[in-house]
Amino acid sequence: MKEYDQLLKAARNIRTLKGIISLLHWDQETYMPSGSNGIRSEQIELLSGIMHREHTGKTFSNTLGKLVDLKSGKPLVKGLNKAELKEFYRDYKLATALPVSFVEEFARLTSESALAWQEARKKDDFQLFLPHLEKIIAMCKKKADLIGYKNHPYDALLDEYEPGMTTKEVANEFSSLKKSIVSLLKKIQGSKQVNDSFLKGNFSEKKQMEFAEILLKGIEFDKTKGRLDLSTHPFSSSTHPSDSRITSRIHKNEFMSHIRSVMHECGHSFYEMGLPEDKYGSPLGDAISLGIHESQSRFWETRIGLSKPFWKHFLPQLKEHFKLNNVTLDSFYKAINKVSPSFIRVEADEVTYPLHVILRFELETELINGKLKVKDIPEAWNGKMQELLGITPPNNTLGCLQDIHWSLGSFGYFPTYTLGNMYAAHLFTAFEKAFPKWEEKLAKGEIHFIHEWLTENIHRHGKAYTGKELLKNITGKPFSADAYNKYLSDKYKSIYGF
Amino acid sequence: MKEYDQLLKAARNIRTLKGIISLLHWDQETYMPSGSNGIRSEQIELLSGIMHREHTGKTFSNTLGKLVDLKSGKPLVKGLNKAELKEFYRDYKLATALPVSFVEEFARLTSESALAWQEARKKDDFQLFLPHLEKIIAMCKKKADLIGYKNHPYDALLDEYEPGMTTKEVANEFSSLKKSIVSLLKKIQGSKQVNDSFLKGNFSEKKQMEFAEILLKGIEFDKTKGRLDLSTHPFSSSTHPSDSRITSRIHKNEFMSHIRSVMHECGHSFYEMGLPEDKYGSPLGDAISLGIHESQSRFWETRIGLSKPFWKHFLPQLKEHFKLNNVTLDSFYKAINKVSPSFIRVEADEVTYPLHVILRFELETELINGKLKVKDIPEAWNGKMQELLGITPPNNTLGCLQDIHWSLGSFGYFPTYTLGNMYAAHLFTAFEKAFPKWEEKLAKGEIHFIHEWLTENIHRHGKAYTGKELLKNITGKPFSADAYNKYLSDKYKSIYGF
Repeated sequence: MKEYDQLLKAARNIRTLKGIISLLHWDQETYMPSGSNGIRSEQIELLSGIMHREHTGKTFSNTLGKLVDLKSGKPLVKGLNKAELKEFYRDYKLATALPVSFVEEFARLTSESALAWQEARKKDDFQLFLPHLEKIIAMCKKKADLIGYKNHPYDALLDEYEPGMTTKEVANEFSSLKKSIVSLLKKIQGSKQVNDSFLKGNFSEKKQMEFAEILLKGIEFDKTKGRLDLSTHPFSSSTHPSDSRITSRIHKNEFMSHIRSVMHECGHSFYEMGLPEDKYGSPLGDAISLGIHESQSRFWETRIGLSKPFWKHFLPQLKEHFKLNNVTLDSFYKAINKVSPSFIRVEADEVTYPLHVILRFELETELINGKLKVKDIPEAWNGKMQELLGITPPNNTLGCLQDIHWSLGSFGYFPTYTLGNMYAAHLFTAFEKAFPKWEEKLAKGEIHFIHEWLTENIHRHGKAYTGKELLKNITGKPFSADAYNKYLSDKYKSIYGF
Repeated sequence: MKEYDQLLKAARNIRTLKGIISLLHWDQETYMPSGSNGIRSEQIELLSGIMHREHTGKTFSNTLGKLVDLKSGKPLVKGLNKAELKEFYRDYKLATALPVSFVEEFARLTSESALAWQEARKKDDFQLFLPHLEKIIAMCKKKADLIGYKNHPYDALLDEYEPGMTTKEVANEFSSLKKSIVSLLKKIQGSKQVNDSFLKGNFSEKKQMEFAEILLKGIEFDKTKGRLDLSTHPFSSSTHPSDSRITSRIHKNEFMSHIRSVMHECGHSFYEMGLPEDKYGSPLGDAISLGIHESQSRFWETRIGLSKPFWKHFLPQLKEHFKLNNVTLDSFYKAINKVSPSFIRVEADEVTYPLHVILRFELETELINGKLKVKDIPEAWNGKMQELLGITPPNNTLGCLQDIHWSLGSFGYFPTYTLGNMYAAHLFTAFEKAFPKWEEKLAKGEIHFIHEWLTENIHRHGKAYTGKELLKNITGKPFSADAYNKYLSDKYKSIYGF
């Protein structure tokens, strides 16, 4: 159908522009000379504006308007994929909610803020970031008003990343999760502690990058369609299923945070590489939500990368590479899964990780509804760290300046991290049923069956289903936190022996 | 004035898009995964199309049309810079000569061809490149017809790179140059040959890149506004005066071609970095022509980088870095200036270099007027190599597949290389007058005065003057080949002692 083809072509152009913007961000975080900030912001602002105009202009709305009613979203034509049209309509409504001038200003502001954040983080000076963050939060509030919401302004922001989720649902979920994790943490802290001293040492950037290459090969990361670089904060950035790049960062005194970052970002990248290329630009070629995306990164980082069979295969190579002697599989497995409250979210263990996210979620909702002032963030952050994890960061670099997200204006993003953990656990119940001997296979270095299962069940569908539909289709059960609770409890009971 | 401000803003957006396209090309040649070719072509095609539409659309022409008569180019408003308006008009006429569909197709074709060329070059298989090049030449002919020309279709192509130059002028110039160089070459070949055996050895990529860093620092290349990477073919790519990147390539058996590439590309980069930032987007913020651009790269590569005082300063560091003992300044200076006909243009000595360019110019004009068929290029190439340089390439990788230019559709580009040499020599007469003791200063490692002179006299003016005007303003004399002939003759007489 002519109108449908026109819609796909226009959407593909919009997606292509979005991909170029991703590449500009990637370059900014990896290879761009430091003095080019100004023009980079201008480039991103210009492309964001063009993309927005293409998406909200008459040509696009006339085309879409022939396929769906632009007021109600009802399909006007039979025989087309309903999910695809529904998502096209949803994207359009979101895009038209914001005027071009707003989008351009937001893009410029966040590009500049990301640099201010880097500087503030380096100098441990929250004041350098403060005026930028104040502007960002003011714009996020305005954004929520423009998009509209029923109960909480945060609903409007959350919905962009995790469609269908409300602030209230997340708050309830997190409140019960908080209780159960705090209880688990107490049991762990009352048990004999795990020794992980042999994970510390002096591991050069070169050696760590070499081992990352061993891993990338072992887990079948396709280097003809992606690459690994270093940046201040690890991220994955995809312009197309054939160009999906990841970054990591290295601490020379230990190698596990680098390995975990690589596994994590690979999980994101595998999702993007597994999306159907022939649907590029259509919602059917796009990822469902950040939560589902995170389920893929956590699947690889924790369910695979922190599992015993994985290291049964890779530990001998790791030991040889880093010249680690006298390390047994059992002691290594326990060490890399050691639970210990710490300051940095991305380096947190599986048990305390959700607490970091809950902290951010609680601060964000209060910043957006105005109960918390930006200048009071450091104090509020440190107070909650003490309350949830029992520790207080010695400085803001290890506290409220650790994440890039706020500088990018990504309010509503953090809760998807913990939803991702829960989704991953839910999905894993089906994976285990499909491959009862997955541990034996993984221990022999087999990886391909995992890719096949994830692509077949998740990646290839794009947005044909909502997150909740997909989770139910695959597992036969509606999504709940049960699988995640059971996984955490079983695993850490066996490690800590309580 | 409102219309003038609108024009500047629109032009700045167009220039910004062009800069993003440059970055996409840079990424394609440096870090892009090999499997992402398809989407990269699509990205470049899309942006080229948007840029073209912005430049040729009603908004732009209405704005420009209030300042100049769009038929004749006559200014309609007083008090504005005439050169700026004239160049705005020239760019507009060039852009409107080509329909959007043509520009998009050309962009896609050349992006794909660049990859085919890489493959063909790697496999020494001209047939892999042949069908792409045939399409490119067909499109270049069509382009010449669309732009229009008086005498030779090549005039239309040449004018894009070197405004005001005609095929006939270049042919005459090159014909006389050919005679004088062939005569000089005979004298050189009849003299005692120079020993350069100590320049060969085993020099790792790492060591060569480290020395490049020493050089970049020594010649004041601002790393906050640029960077150096490796690629198949060295190039310089500028998105803005604050982001100008260069690449080089390394042969492990010698270091001089890398050093010359770095010096050469730095010269280009210095020009871009020296353009006035506040005129970004205006012709007053843009380089005059490829010939003037090349005068800057050749200035640094040959007039500075192959001079004795330069190496008086850097040779001790080079000797230490590469562990070269028993090399005197005099023998080193002679060795790096050794004249010896060879296959690769970018590695040619100063004397034979113009012959490589003349060869390409002669082939290009015949390809464009249809006298030469694409399939006959290898034979024609090898025949001319024998005629001009007395040598025949053993394969096409060392012959007609060595340059990236044709794959990018850049017909009309090559002659500007030799014009650049001649311009550089012409400019140098004024530089020597301004700094009679430049050799003493350079020998002490002083560099800043060179940057100041080039920026003050050339870079900061953008396109305020034509190439010919600029050359006359600076030297007081109209441009001629005299200075270049005298320079070559004096220099090589002293080296070869004839």
